[in-house]
Amino acid sequence: MAKAKRIEGVLSPVVTPFRKDYSPDAERFVRHCRWLLKNGCSGLAIFGTNSEANSMSVSEKRRLLEALIAGGVPGSALMPGTGHSALADSIEMTKAAVEAGCAGVLMLPPFYYKGVPDEGLYRNFAEVIERVGDERLQLYLYHIPPVAQVPITLNLIEKLLSKYPGIVAGVKDSSGDWSNTKAMLDNFAKQGFDVFAGSEVFLLDNMRNGGKGCITATGNVNPGPIDNVYRNWRSAEADRLQAGITTTRKIVQKQPMIAALKAIIAHFGNDPQWKTLRPPLMELTAAQEEELIRDLKGNGFTMPGLAA
Amino acid sequence: MAKAKRIEGVLSPVVTPFRKDYSPDAERFVRHCRWLLKNGCSGLAIFGTNSEANSMSVSEKRRLLEALIAGGVPGSALMPGTGHSALADSIEMTKAAVEAGCAGVLMLPPFYYKGVPDEGLYRNFAEVIERVGDERLQLYLYHIPPVAQVPITLNLIEKLLSKYPGIVAGVKDSSGDWSNTKAMLDNFAKQGFDVFAGSEVFLLDNMRNGGKGCITATGNVNPGPIDNVYRNWRSAEADRLQAGITTTRKIVQKQPMIAALKAIIAHFGNDPQWKTLRPPLMELTAAQEEELIRDLKGNGFTMPGLAA
Repeated sequence: MAKAKRIEGVLSPVVTPFRKDYSPDAERFVRHCRWLLKNGCSGLAIFGTNSEANSMSVSEKRRLLEALIAGGVPGSALMPGTGHSALADSIEMTKAAVEAGCAGVLMLPPFYYKGVPDEGLYRNFAEVIERVGDERLQLYLYHIPPVAQVPITLNLIEKLLSKYPGIVAGVKDSSGDWSNTKAMLDNFAKQGFDVFAGSEVFLLDNMRNGGKGCITATGNVNPGPIDNVYRNWRSAEADRLQAGITTTRKIVQKQPMIAALKAIIAHFGNDPQWKTLRPPLMELTAAQEEELIRDLKGNGFTMPGLAA
Repeated sequence: MAKAKRIEGVLSPVVTPFRKDYSPDAERFVRHCRWLLKNGCSGLAIFGTNSEANSMSVSEKRRLLEALIAGGVPGSALMPGTGHSALADSIEMTKAAVEAGCAGVLMLPPFYYKGVPDEGLYRNFAEVIERVGDERLQLYLYHIPPVAQVPITLNLIEKLLSKYPGIVAGVKDSSGDWSNTKAMLDNFAKQGFDVFAGSEVFLLDNMRNGGKGCITATGNVNPGPIDNVYRNWRSAEADRLQAGITTTRKIVQKQPMIAALKAIIAHFGNDPQWKTLRPPLMELTAAQEEELIRDLKGNGFTMPGLAA
């Protein structure tokens, strides 16, 4: 069966809007996803770390995915997070994503037990692949050791790629360590393994070394300028463009990231409900929010067309 | 509404049997639970870390809980783990436990996001308590920083206990740090907050300082001698009895704990299927298993009545 062309470019791990009672707000979610696709994102890595995905149940996520598809967002633009600590949850969510026609899935390793052997992680991913049993599956591994505390090692990638070459499609590297991203590129990019940087700070470096783009938190609020680096990485302007998006990133990441993204959308979209986070995460303090918005405005930041 | 007397003594975080295809095996689970209650356990902390609970979905756990109740294990002997990274999952599982008449629930903090503020954890536990909305709920906090990486601090306990004094019932301390258990006892035991040591190594110390027992991995295989320390902690024999169970514990924990417990049950129950673990965890190597069984036998270890 012929596979579709793989997704590339700037993907946003879409933040999830909650109502005051912490229930997911599908309407605002669909609206934000559409804004992102219109404003520079090639794709949407819904249900990522920045989406508070692991604060939601599988059925809550399935309902949001259905709402997106029903709302006209094409599966071909979606790379949902489907890795859970529970094997059964990972299988259910991955199946749902493949059946919805998603371009790929971004899979965390099981993250409760620490210090587990690579062979155990291999068995986990292999079991998901076998149980889903669908040639359309494009699996991107999600390496985010500062949060998951369980790494995706080069060894593990090699083993999975050699057993499932048509299915294991790439990685998002959120280690924050460029030398690790570089090692992934050097070892596997030529085998058709697509490396996405986990932050736009590394976007230009990633493109210059054979990577395919980035999947970045700040893509939620600054997709246009980030996409501009992606589209013009070969141009003479590339380093200047990169410096611009790095500056914005640094302003945002001075604050707790997910709360900051939501505060920005709430402010520039005139929609305070966006500030709500699910426990255990919390909204910014008034002082943090004030500093964030002031710094962004001082830097000329805008979100064109966001406010209703 | 009058509350039942709280559970005390030796509780086992029951290991979960899986078939070769990794599906939970309810029949073996019920059988092992009955053996534990007949052989020294006062209660069963099903769905704990040692149960591979976070490798199972909520619906898989609900089915096992139903099978236990249907199999004649009384709810009054059960303290299921109900804390998940997803708020919705914690609410669903806690509700199910209360409705099944469980003596209590043992709640992990949400464990995906690291470095979260106590106030965010407070909101998470408070939201579960409010949503379950049932006076029968007895909530035991589960402190296991080596695995969850998200701690239950004294501050958090104080805040929860002062808001929900009839519901927040105690803690399992699996920090492995006696000074932390002692601080929990010194600060809260007199307010009716029941402290369980997370290992029988600290059982006697815990009892001598106002604790209520232990919830311990090795309770799966050595419940009788551990219960003997619990029942006789005031006797002149107590230190000698404690030394005996500590020796057994040390033999078991030389190997990866969950795999070791399953290998022991498989060996002494003549039932090799018990060796199966869900990925990412793995069974012992043949050499590890041989060393484990040899050391236990050399120490006179038995599991009376386990083999069919």
